[in-house]
Amino acid sequence: MTSSPNAKLDTVLARIDSDLPAATDRLLELLRIPSISTDPAYKGDCDRAADWLVTDLQSLGIKAEKRPTPGHPMVVGHVDGPKGSTGPHILFYGHYDVQPVDPLNLWRRDPFDPAIEDTAKGKVIRGRGSADDKGQLMTFIEACRAWKAEHGELPCKITFFLEGEEESGSPSLVPFMKENADELTCDLALICDTGLFQSKTPAIMTMLRGLLGEEFTITGPDKDLHSGMYGGLAMNPARVLTKILGNLFDEDGVIQVPDLYEGVPVLNPEMKAQWEGLGFDYKTFLGDVGLSEPAGEASVTPLEMIWSRPTAEINGIWSGYTGAGFKTVLPSEASAKLSFRLVGTQDPLAIRKNFRAWVEAQLPADCKITWKDHSCSPASQMSTDHPAFEAARKALTDEWPDPAAYAGCGGSIPIAGYFKSILGMDAMLVGWGKDDDMIHSPNEKYDLESFHKGTRSWARMLAAMSE
Amino acid sequence: MTSSPNAKLDTVLARIDSDLPAATDRLLELLRIPSISTDPAYKGDCDRAADWLVTDLQSLGIKAEKRPTPGHPMVVGHVDGPKGSTGPHILFYGHYDVQPVDPLNLWRRDPFDPAIEDTAKGKVIRGRGSADDKGQLMTFIEACRAWKAEHGELPCKITFFLEGEEESGSPSLVPFMKENADELTCDLALICDTGLFQSKTPAIMTMLRGLLGEEFTITGPDKDLHSGMYGGLAMNPARVLTKILGNLFDEDGVIQVPDLYEGVPVLNPEMKAQWEGLGFDYKTFLGDVGLSEPAGEASVTPLEMIWSRPTAEINGIWSGYTGAGFKTVLPSEASAKLSFRLVGTQDPLAIRKNFRAWVEAQLPADCKITWKDHSCSPASQMSTDHPAFEAARKALTDEWPDPAAYAGCGGSIPIAGYFKSILGMDAMLVGWGKDDDMIHSPNEKYDLESFHKGTRSWARMLAAMSE
Repeated sequence: MTSSPNAKLDTVLARIDSDLPAATDRLLELLRIPSISTDPAYKGDCDRAADWLVTDLQSLGIKAEKRPTPGHPMVVGHVDGPKGSTGPHILFYGHYDVQPVDPLNLWRRDPFDPAIEDTAKGKVIRGRGSADDKGQLMTFIEACRAWKAEHGELPCKITFFLEGEEESGSPSLVPFMKENADELTCDLALICDTGLFQSKTPAIMTMLRGLLGEEFTITGPDKDLHSGMYGGLAMNPARVLTKILGNLFDEDGVIQVPDLYEGVPVLNPEMKAQWEGLGFDYKTFLGDVGLSEPAGEASVTPLEMIWSRPTAEINGIWSGYTGAGFKTVLPSEASAKLSFRLVGTQDPLAIRKNFRAWVEAQLPADCKITWKDHSCSPASQMSTDHPAFEAARKALTDEWPDPAAYAGCGGSIPIAGYFKSILGMDAMLVGWGKDDDMIHSPNEKYDLESFHKGTRSWARMLAAMSE
Repeated sequence: MTSSPNAKLDTVLARIDSDLPAATDRLLELLRIPSISTDPAYKGDCDRAADWLVTDLQSLGIKAEKRPTPGHPMVVGHVDGPKGSTGPHILFYGHYDVQPVDPLNLWRRDPFDPAIEDTAKGKVIRGRGSADDKGQLMTFIEACRAWKAEHGELPCKITFFLEGEEESGSPSLVPFMKENADELTCDLALICDTGLFQSKTPAIMTMLRGLLGEEFTITGPDKDLHSGMYGGLAMNPARVLTKILGNLFDEDGVIQVPDLYEGVPVLNPEMKAQWEGLGFDYKTFLGDVGLSEPAGEASVTPLEMIWSRPTAEINGIWSGYTGAGFKTVLPSEASAKLSFRLVGTQDPLAIRKNFRAWVEAQLPADCKITWKDHSCSPASQMSTDHPAFEAARKALTDEWPDPAAYAGCGGSIPIAGYFKSILGMDAMLVGWGKDDDMIHSPNEKYDLESFHKGTRSWARMLAAMSE
């Protein structure tokens, strides 16, 4: 008879430790591919990143292939567990695409020439995608590699599902899941795209905010004008845009879009108490980025602002002359990109409708407006009933100094909800990112500790869940 | 005895008519030089434009040279009139620098590959600088060329003073005028950088608005952040910027900067009556650019909005991600460029101080702000006492269908005030631009009629003023 997965764990962990330099080199290779999904100029690079992953998975004996979509390809792979394994059939999800890198001048190195750097806080892997999400998805693949190398097989049956459009709203995801529902349905989905709580406590995210992305352009005069010739008489769309967005919040930080708070749940006392128990240190959290004061609704706690309350953020605005020097132009157009984070049962489509009506009601007669849709996903609440959750929480507690916690997450990972609604399976969100990883920002990094202990954590979780 | 200037005029006008094709070719040559003064990348081109003018002036027997400044060079030239001429010593001012060309994608041709185009309204010279100001300054030089060709000399003593920094706030102008006051002081200055009233009535501008240019950057977090991780908790500088600029005007279009209207004169009844007599057709003026409603102070007339009232215009705003697709970033910085048009005795420095204090008073504790100075010039009111004004007005009336008018001007031509304050001479502002020339915009043009009749007008004015 074969020994139990847990009995096989020690040699896997040892292999992960000794293989760390080679594992890091593999990650650096993947990080050199500039797979920016939102910018059409990088389509070929997204394709190369998918090919790289297919080849790597195949080297583990996994039946992997690149699957086309109208956008960037999916990478899908399948591998069986041991004969007679009683473990669950697990799906692992990660994404190989990355965020744009601008403002490029703020990077201290080429974002796609990654390297290991020594910092005051220890060794880090610096480069775009190191933390979001290439470094994270490779922790799982490296854990599988160690299992395969030590024991010739993986401890349970696994389906790999790697996406290339997560940073651009995942337009192909839902259609692909629906078309391939039978193939992708497993007992449980593992999603590795989140972080540790306060950079030290392993966390299984059970509450995810939704995301609504909006973009609009206001047009006033049909061409740029001389501000001396027309100024004061011709309506300036930049004036209109700032006036409208200037009304987005009241003095208490409450979003002014009608009915926006419909479906926002009241935080139940138990959860509120557990969160207070976590002792969220918002002063350090904000201090790390040069701030000190919570900017959200005056009536809620800082942790609620990022976990359980809806938000509206201006992600970009542009109008007129933005180059060096000065140009006395009265611009023809002014544009903005905004995103709303959604919670509870807030309806993204209703909020899109209400937001657009709210903006258009403030538009002067002489201005036109055009809209672009971006992401549109509701919030989701994970069930933790599947026994794998408690097994995973114990395994995580064995690896890290602090016991693992069930936590909320400010970010939006729509796929978690889709696994439930389309494939009927629960999703477990676990990751090793830290608050100071600067994902989506210049100088993104991933701690070597996150990469190493993250890989070890997956090895432990695979064993625990396969018992 | 030599015949009078007026007796010599007819052959000069005939020469201008026959020389028009060659004159147009010379202008196209100058327009091909991309002398964008505000952008350091074009420094060499500004220099080339100055050299081109020096060579052209020298070909008319004018002692011309390029004179260095800390910025772009001045072109200065001198030529005597006829022996025993009783005419005034005239200074002619124009500028050889041009505005930036963005947004480039809106140009129907390369802005620096100019050409004559047939349009529904007749032939036009299309290209950046065709109207502002290369085409205009060349009308004067071509008039001189014709006088020289027909009579071997010019009808009066003339000093040429051509600038290369007008579109970037003329930083070197005042120091240069002060250092060379003796050389530049004449009886009267002619400035060719304005237009016809409503595209048809020749106008001598007697009222010019001042200009104050401001630029600021608001910094919130010290790096770009993930809007999901920090959104709702961290202050967003784009939210702060839109909030502040959204307060710039009240519902009646009144600018909210404290004391801004100090020094704004009440329009006297005579001037008000004369302006009403001009029958300004604001519906066509706005209709030409796709608008219909006056956007200025509810309490004043459309003509006052562009001639005699102060304005505040947002010339540019930028923050966060402005590229293709979507990026859920919470930006670190948000910036704006604004310009104020000033009238009467409004004090630009006081308004700069009050505006900055007004902005900073609205800044949250967590935000920093940095400022950049741009143009800073008061409004000016021209005196028309010098007999040359009436002589010029008659000469203009001879050339054009409508009698010439004394008019206001929305734009800002600070040098007019400097000629008076530094050199003690009056300035006469005359030009041939039309409302639809799209100066400072894509597809700038100058009507061939403006170029031709403008040249003829200068010939007439030189004769009339030299009598």
